[in-house]
Amino acid sequence: MTQLENRTFDEIAIGDKIQAEKTLTERDILLFAEVSGDVNPVHLDAEYAAGTLFKQRIAHGMWTGAQISALLGVQMPGPGTIYLGQNLSFRAPVYLGDTIEFELTVSDKRDDKKIVHFQCKASNQHGKTVASGEAQVIAPTEKIRLPRPTLPNITIG
Amino acid sequence: MTQLENRTFDEIAIGDKIQAEKTLTERDILLFAEVSGDVNPVHLDAEYAAGTLFKQRIAHGMWTGAQISALLGVQMPGPGTIYLGQNLSFRAPVYLGDTIEFELTVSDKRDDKKIVHFQCKASNQHGKTVASGEAQVIAPTEKIRLPRPTLPNITIG
Repeated sequence: MTQLENRTFDEIAIGDKIQAEKTLTERDILLFAEVSGDVNPVHLDAEYAAGTLFKQRIAHGMWTGAQISALLGVQMPGPGTIYLGQNLSFRAPVYLGDTIEFELTVSDKRDDKKIVHFQCKASNQHGKTVASGEAQVIAPTEKIRLPRPTLPNITIG
Repeated sequence: MTQLENRTFDEIAIGDKIQAEKTLTERDILLFAEVSGDVNPVHLDAEYAAGTLFKQRIAHGMWTGAQISALLGVQMPGPGTIYLGQNLSFRAPVYLGDTIEFELTVSDKRDDKKIVHFQCKASNQHGKTVASGEAQVIAPTEKIRLPRPTLPNITIG
């Protein structure tokens, strides 16, 4: 996709869904540790993690939150969205190599303030819910189409 | 700090606070866009952002969430923490160069399940609250001290 196109408030209906899939990599964990400052060893140190109840390294919980927020920012509603709030329950760990499916479903719309509510769910490749919650946004009222911004190359190590 | 030391459930009291300060840089925005996939132009494109109600580029909302989660993971409780959930309300934009103060205050403890609740607040250099919410964690019961993990060098462009 070289274009971003938003979904305006009027184009969004209760029950509409967006989905995306992402596999957690070493790179994801390192970038998230860097940008958050969260160097808790359960994310970074395999030997330490082996001695925890998780038995292996896990993703930062907010990595999952970040993926959910990205769907709101680029897919639906996309450009012009104002992010009002997010609830998240972290229900199971995300391990390196896990493929997480993110699904956001429009659960409510408020015409007066153009507010849209989304039920948010993240599940792993075994069908287990790893996180769930709710997002609230103000959806844009004007149609926006524009070239998708590109990022500079980011290298680790 | 070259060491990480946790605060066990018993060492945490209602009213305890942790604080940290961070200034939002271009690098933060680019890293967060990369790790989340959120390339919404309000974060990346100054010209586009100038035409929005924000008038300039803003941080990803979940960047603020990520900083809050990092305080739980490295400061209090720190290593051994299990992150159960997070609520966030995004109340005002965070602009490039803003210095955000994050403050987490222990608001409740549940002895039976070792659950600790934190009130979370992020404020900018003008004293305006940019985000607030609540976190729930299971705090560790065993003391952990260990060397602070270091990250590889990450370069952009």
